[in-house]
Amino acid sequence: MSAREHTQGRAGRLRETTLGEIAQAVGGTVEGDGAAMIRGAMPIERAGPDDLTFLANPRYAKALATTRAGGIVVGEGVQADGHNLIRVTHPYLAFARALTLLVQPALPEPGIHAGAHVHPGATLGAGAAVMAGAYVGARCVLGPGTIVFPGAVLLEGVVCGADCHLYPGVVVREDCRLGDRVILNPNVSIGGDGYGFAQDGARHVKIPQIGTVEIGDDVEIGAGSTVDRAAMGATTIGRGTKIDNLVMVGHGCTIGEDVLIVAQSGMAGSATIGDRAILAARAGVLGHLTLGAGTLVYSRAHVTKSTPEGAVVSGNPARPHKEQLRRDALLARIDQLNERVAQLERRVGKQDEQK
Amino acid sequence: MSAREHTQGRAGRLRETTLGEIAQAVGGTVEGDGAAMIRGAMPIERAGPDDLTFLANPRYAKALATTRAGGIVVGEGVQADGHNLIRVTHPYLAFARALTLLVQPALPEPGIHAGAHVHPGATLGAGAAVMAGAYVGARCVLGPGTIVFPGAVLLEGVVCGADCHLYPGVVVREDCRLGDRVILNPNVSIGGDGYGFAQDGARHVKIPQIGTVEIGDDVEIGAGSTVDRAAMGATTIGRGTKIDNLVMVGHGCTIGEDVLIVAQSGMAGSATIGDRAILAARAGVLGHLTLGAGTLVYSRAHVTKSTPEGAVVSGNPARPHKEQLRRDALLARIDQLNERVAQLERRVGKQDEQK
Amino acid sequence: MSAREHTQGRAGRLRETTLGEIAQAVGGTVEGDGAAMIRGAMPIERAGPDDLTFLANPRYAKALATTRAGGIVVGEGVQADGHNLIRVTHPYLAFARALTLLVQPALPEPGIHAGAHVHPGATLGAGAAVMAGAYVGARCVLGPGTIVFPGAVLLEGVVCGADCHLYPGVVVREDCRLGDRVILNPNVSIGGDGYGFAQDGARHVKIPQIGTVEIGDDVEIGAGSTVDRAAMGATTIGRGTKIDNLVMVGHGCTIGEDVLIVAQSGMAGSATIGDRAILAARAGVLGHLTLGAGTLVYSRAHVTKSTPEGAVVSGNPARPHKEQLRRDALLARIDQLNERVAQLERRVGKQDEQK
Repeated sequence: MSAREHTQGRAGRLRETTLGEIAQAVGGTVEGDGAAMIRGAMPIERAGPDDLTFLANPRYAKALATTRAGGIVVGEGVQADGHNLIRVTHPYLAFARALTLLVQPALPEPGIHAGAHVHPGATLGAGAAVMAGAYVGARCVLGPGTIVFPGAVLLEGVVCGADCHLYPGVVVREDCRLGDRVILNPNVSIGGDGYGFAQDGARHVKIPQIGTVEIGDDVEIGAGSTVDRAAMGATTIGRGTKIDNLVMVGHGCTIGEDVLIVAQSGMAGSATIGDRAILAARAGVLGHLTLGAGTLVYSRAHVTKSTPEGAVVSGNPARPHKEQLRRDALLARIDQLNERVAQLERRVGKQDEQK
Repeated sequence: MSAREHTQGRAGRLRETTLGEIAQAVGGTVEGDGAAMIRGAMPIERAGPDDLTFLANPRYAKALATTRAGGIVVGEGVQADGHNLIRVTHPYLAFARALTLLVQPALPEPGIHAGAHVHPGATLGAGAAVMAGAYVGARCVLGPGTIVFPGAVLLEGVVCGADCHLYPGVVVREDCRLGDRVILNPNVSIGGDGYGFAQDGARHVKIPQIGTVEIGDDVEIGAGSTVDRAAMGATTIGRGTKIDNLVMVGHGCTIGEDVLIVAQSGMAGSATIGDRAILAARAGVLGHLTLGAGTLVYSRAHVTKSTPEGAVVSGNPARPHKEQLRRDALLARIDQLNERVAQLERRVGKQDEQK
Repeated sequence: MSAREHTQGRAGRLRETTLGEIAQAVGGTVEGDGAAMIRGAMPIERAGPDDLTFLANPRYAKALATTRAGGIVVGEGVQADGHNLIRVTHPYLAFARALTLLVQPALPEPGIHAGAHVHPGATLGAGAAVMAGAYVGARCVLGPGTIVFPGAVLLEGVVCGADCHLYPGVVVREDCRLGDRVILNPNVSIGGDGYGFAQDGARHVKIPQIGTVEIGDDVEIGAGSTVDRAAMGATTIGRGTKIDNLVMVGHGCTIGEDVLIVAQSGMAGSATIGDRAILAARAGVLGHLTLGAGTLVYSRAHVTKSTPEGAVVSGNPARPHKEQLRRDALLARIDQLNERVAQLERRVGKQDEQK
């Protein structure tokens, strides 16, 4: 199996097009041969004559000397003589759009496939598809173009907007609601019971979780992540928010719009995350806190206090990042501090002797 | 879609009742109008005239002035003139019980649904249900009232007690056993192979994992969590223990009764957790350790040594919490310590000069 | 239910054999009764007269005085009079092989079971099985002896080698490739979309993930883990690598051969992990780094820089383990350092007074 075959595993899904057609679609200018055929895409150092690639990070500029790419999406001011270019203002964004043009997703036939389990009380929009082995319960509503992949399960009363992709193993429990173009990657769990118990002596008595989950338009959630239903009311995830794999969103959380939450992060119950906040990998947020809009939480930070708008925090417990950096620098010199104290002890001891 | 509709997503499941009926069921006393109709439940600041709510935390007492709740479960000594109250000793516990009365879970019809895969050698108790798309293997036994939701899979020889709920995506592998009233939330994995390998030079040779998993009565496990089967013998989880989402229980662990294990925690192989222990979020316990009954492990603590009964530990590596607090306080003043040393250096330098 | 029944939950799967037959299979020498019947296996302190056990760790040698085991696999130099022994050079490895002999896995009938969903364009090798409720898409190829358990889903174009076990809840998305003898435990997600977005003002625009995942021979992945497909090219996991539960492998990672990755670890996009590296529990590796062959990453280490071959690192951020130990020792004495500074201040103050 050659490297080429690896990368062309999805070749059946890629469509041929010309550099010129791509340039037009992404609002860029061709420099070089606009008729060059493009049949795939690869990182710059591995791209071949059929591949489109891009250069967004100047760190990779030296790859221009050796790349065999058939076309390169570049920003202003990049010199790349002898290459076929698409010049744009935001090369990475333009490349993302070019890929959308190149990739022909292999969508299933619309309708209820043989072997699907769809309750007669469910409603499917035009072009929606429920594939074999999937389950769609009573009172469910699937918007136009929404696809429920094999093995995905929607219990009763789930409402999905248009063009959602619910991949295999996805579970959406009763009465949760999804907006349009929501992507749930494999084995995502939406609407499991929140973790709530009352004490009866040493025993833990379950608080029935009678709330739901509400997910906005253009949200994507990564494989294996879990979003619990609220005890009462709804756990909400705002429009455009992107959640990575194995993230835990506790019951009653309110996640804003355009938020990024990187892998293995977790939010305890009733936390509020402001719009455009970013939680790097393995960040944790305690329950009932509010993170202001645009808060940036560094990787592994453990947030124990609410943050103002635009806060930048790191560490455990999380503190303003600059403060944490200063503290880390001091801790990194703990051996020198120790040595300075030892030296002082020697000098002071000598002074005592001299008396 | 109004806020009301969100919260009433499960309205089909809520039943109407009177404040008086609820008071009687939870052993409380009505103050006000016992005939008031209750049709839902909400947090105190969002409750409307049809909703029951509760006040357990004095922090929220000021909400009494503005809440529109139709009924409030309160403890002794709370003043709330003009509201319909149910007065009890333990308001949160009573509220949990009231919710059980209010919520009418939408249970499936008993029996084997069309589209379910049930081996003829499996046995179902009275009222047990296996829904479309679920799989129940040979020699499986389902106790009365147990529900296997769509997409849940029980491989051969799995034994479940009465009134268990196995939600979609749940997997229970061969020969594992569950007690009564066990709740497994979506995509929980029970009985996967433990992580055990012997070295053969640089290669890792799999140790067949021939043990099982045993789960006691009234255990609940959160979405996406995994409990591995033992290499030999059984991984066990004691009665009444509640495990949150994305928790990892290694092979051969012995978890006691009434234990709480919060999200994203992990226990390595053959760890023993005593009864009524609490592991806060993202706690970790190394293999082969024993945590004494009632041990409290703070969030993110990394437990590397066994603990006595009633221990309270935090930090990485975990140490007694008081010691950790003292240490943290000193580390938080590292800049001051640094400054004090600098000052000493100046003073001692001056003394040297003066000689 | 007796303890015996617990451990014999899988008795239907264990086959009877003699100590002599086992010794021959593992290349060991019998000391004692080679005709002794073996019907199971247990840890040394719980083994009965029908059970095989082993002694690899001298810590457990005192158990020899009391064990009732029917046979014990031991290394050179162990004295165990009165016991039936199999003496070998590597007892743990030999025991692993003995278990393989003892355990008769309950394999399903070959072929496509009733209730399985197999696209007519899929190809099954001799002895391959697709069980009820499983899904195998168009263009899929299953090697001889490969088993797709109930509820597992292979989307179109997935290629599996021989003798793979894809347990319930496993998802392998489009065009990913698995070698021979790959074991995917319950609810593993292979080929979900990587986490890649371009900025368009405040909005995040999805980068289509057109790459795949390539998994080598003899790889095992634990329950609930996720391996994302590459943006372009392939995410690869080398031969013989063993991954534990709830691990996150980001898009475009290149994991070497015979690597061990323990539970709840995570690797960000495009990280490269060298052959025979070991990542202990909850290790984290930032994106685009390269860990040299044989690197050992301690539990909870947060690797922020590439490592040379054979590196041993720990801490957050990770540094050479010896350096981290020294630093930890100094930090552990922060209270003494504080006291020493206080004492210096008193002495220097006294000297000032004396002037």
